[in-house]
Amino acid sequence: MCQEYDGYARRTVELARDEALGLLASVPFGRIVFTSNALPAIRPVNHLVDSEGFVVVRTRLLSGLAALMRPGRSVVVAYEADEIDPVRRIGWSVVVTGLARTVTTPERVAEYGRTLQPWVEPRTAAVITIEPTIVSGLRLVA
Amino acid sequence: MCQEYDGYARRTVELARDEALGLLASVPFGRIVFTSNALPAIRPVNHLVDSEGFVVVRTRLLSGLAALMRPGRSVVVAYEADEIDPVRRIGWSVVVTGLARTVTTPERVAEYGRTLQPWVEPRTAAVITIEPTIVSGLRLVA
Repeated sequence: MCQEYDGYARRTVELARDEALGLLASVPFGRIVFTSNALPAIRPVNHLVDSEGFVVVRTRLLSGLAALMRPGRSVVVAYEADEIDPVRRIGWSVVVTGLARTVTTPERVAEYGRTLQPWVEPRTAAVITIEPTIVSGLRLVA
Repeated sequence: MCQEYDGYARRTVELARDEALGLLASVPFGRIVFTSNALPAIRPVNHLVDSEGFVVVRTRLLSGLAALMRPGRSVVVAYEADEIDPVRRIGWSVVVTGLARTVTTPERVAEYGRTLQPWVEPRTAAVITIEPTIVSGLRLVA
């Protein structure tokens, strides 16, 4: 019965690291942010968050990113997820920033192959982990 | 009654420019992507799309970006919005890439002050337009 916007501006509250990672782990997809041909680039992708807080993605949608990541090379990316109610104007957004690396160890590739199913074109998907070096998050509150 | 995931991988269909801009205009918020201290950065913000396809945002959440934009200077950003159903794994994502500029003309600042109300802390918000130089979009289909 209270699904209307109350007319007041929102304020933002910063989230602690653990709460932010917990929220990120509670949703199945987000958006990976990187630089492609000197331009900012962003693509939606589904993810999981492992026990160490690494964000793991696995999809061919990342081909633009994967092309930057030659074997042994890593690039800094940001990964964002949010849940925002546009009617009530409340919700949260979490951003993880850190090195993205391609997983090459066969055991770990196999493990993520079981636990993380890409939504799009599974067969050609690489597994990429993002190190949670910087974790920031905010909550929009009434 | 069909709100379940059917178990099949999705495929992506590219959207034409007009359709993509129409979808972007149909939702009230998205995420602005830029480079801050040499790191990829992303923040959620509410927007409108004007009659020429420019994305207009107005919020203090952009302070990180606004600091980059000294008077007369423009920076390239990406702006993303999406509507994705994580259960059925269908939806769309649109990305606009182009120059972001601070609006300084008093008439235009006043116009956007009326038509675009920032969700957070209105008084200190700058008006920023993003030129739709590159418009890309994809639809996730079953």
